[in-house]
Amino acid sequence: MNAPITLHPVAFVRSSRAVVEDDGWDAEATSIELAEHVPTEALLGLADFSHAEIVFVFDRLGESDVVTGARHPRGNTSWPRVGIFAQRGKNRPNRLGATMVRILAVEGRTVRVAGLDAIDGTPVVDIKPVIREFLPRGEVRQPGWATELMKAYW
Amino acid sequence: MNAPITLHPVAFVRSSRAVVEDDGWDAEATSIELAEHVPTEALLGLADFSHAEIVFVFDRLGESDVVTGARHPRGNTSWPRVGIFAQRGKNRPNRLGATMVRILAVEGRTVRVAGLDAIDGTPVVDIKPVIREFLPRGEVRQPGWATELMKAYW
Repeated sequence: MNAPITLHPVAFVRSSRAVVEDDGWDAEATSIELAEHVPTEALLGLADFSHAEIVFVFDRLGESDVVTGARHPRGNTSWPRVGIFAQRGKNRPNRLGATMVRILAVEGRTVRVAGLDAIDGTPVVDIKPVIREFLPRGEVRQPGWATELMKAYW
Repeated sequence: MNAPITLHPVAFVRSSRAVVEDDGWDAEATSIELAEHVPTEALLGLADFSHAEIVFVFDRLGESDVVTGARHPRGNTSWPRVGIFAQRGKNRPNRLGATMVRILAVEGRTVRVAGLDAIDGTPVVDIKPVIREFLPRGEVRQPGWATELMKAYW
């Protein structure tokens, strides 16, 4: 049950951002290109959805960058020290990112998207359509530090 | 760049549902228990969020069950044939699930949650707090078949 799990990239991010930065992601032009082994048909019907969730790997991060316990988000000590599973920072076990993007167009083996916070070349391990019934049910509450951190993010 | 990616479970699902079924997930009592190698501190502050996203692996699925192209969701031919990345079914490359659950309580190394569609023993590879600014921006649109499929899901 503790066995490791092996994933293979199904696509790669193309982005006008090549270097990791924290904020200002909406300024970038981004798309997702299917990996060679994935048939084009995998995207059939995706354009009927307004949004997709992209699951990707922060592959530029080394093992030694990963935090397994708690830290101040972005090292900012004016925010509380919280567990790595109570923040969305990249330095996390398994280095997975998951972001809901707007679908601009599906063009052959490429999906042009808006609002993807991943740099050029990032391996994508899943693409899921956003379905309303899978969004949070009930009121969404979050601590003040999270709202503050997100102010310049997009 | 096409290199395989190795993940290690960070937690496991405990659920009153032990066998895979399509619908009626809300009837189940579910929780997430940290794996032995993860410090308890990883959950610090998670209780200040109302919802979390659980990324997990459909580990009961064999390689041969995976669809890489297109299929009718749930094999239902009254719904259109769509690509595997235009549906959220489990038979997908890399077998990843991602579900936003309500946090009921964080109790030591266990998070009790509502609305988790994963069976007992499922390996969890990430836990992320749901932050409003990461939810879809703009109107969410989806095709009719997706709305219909979700009718009995929760």
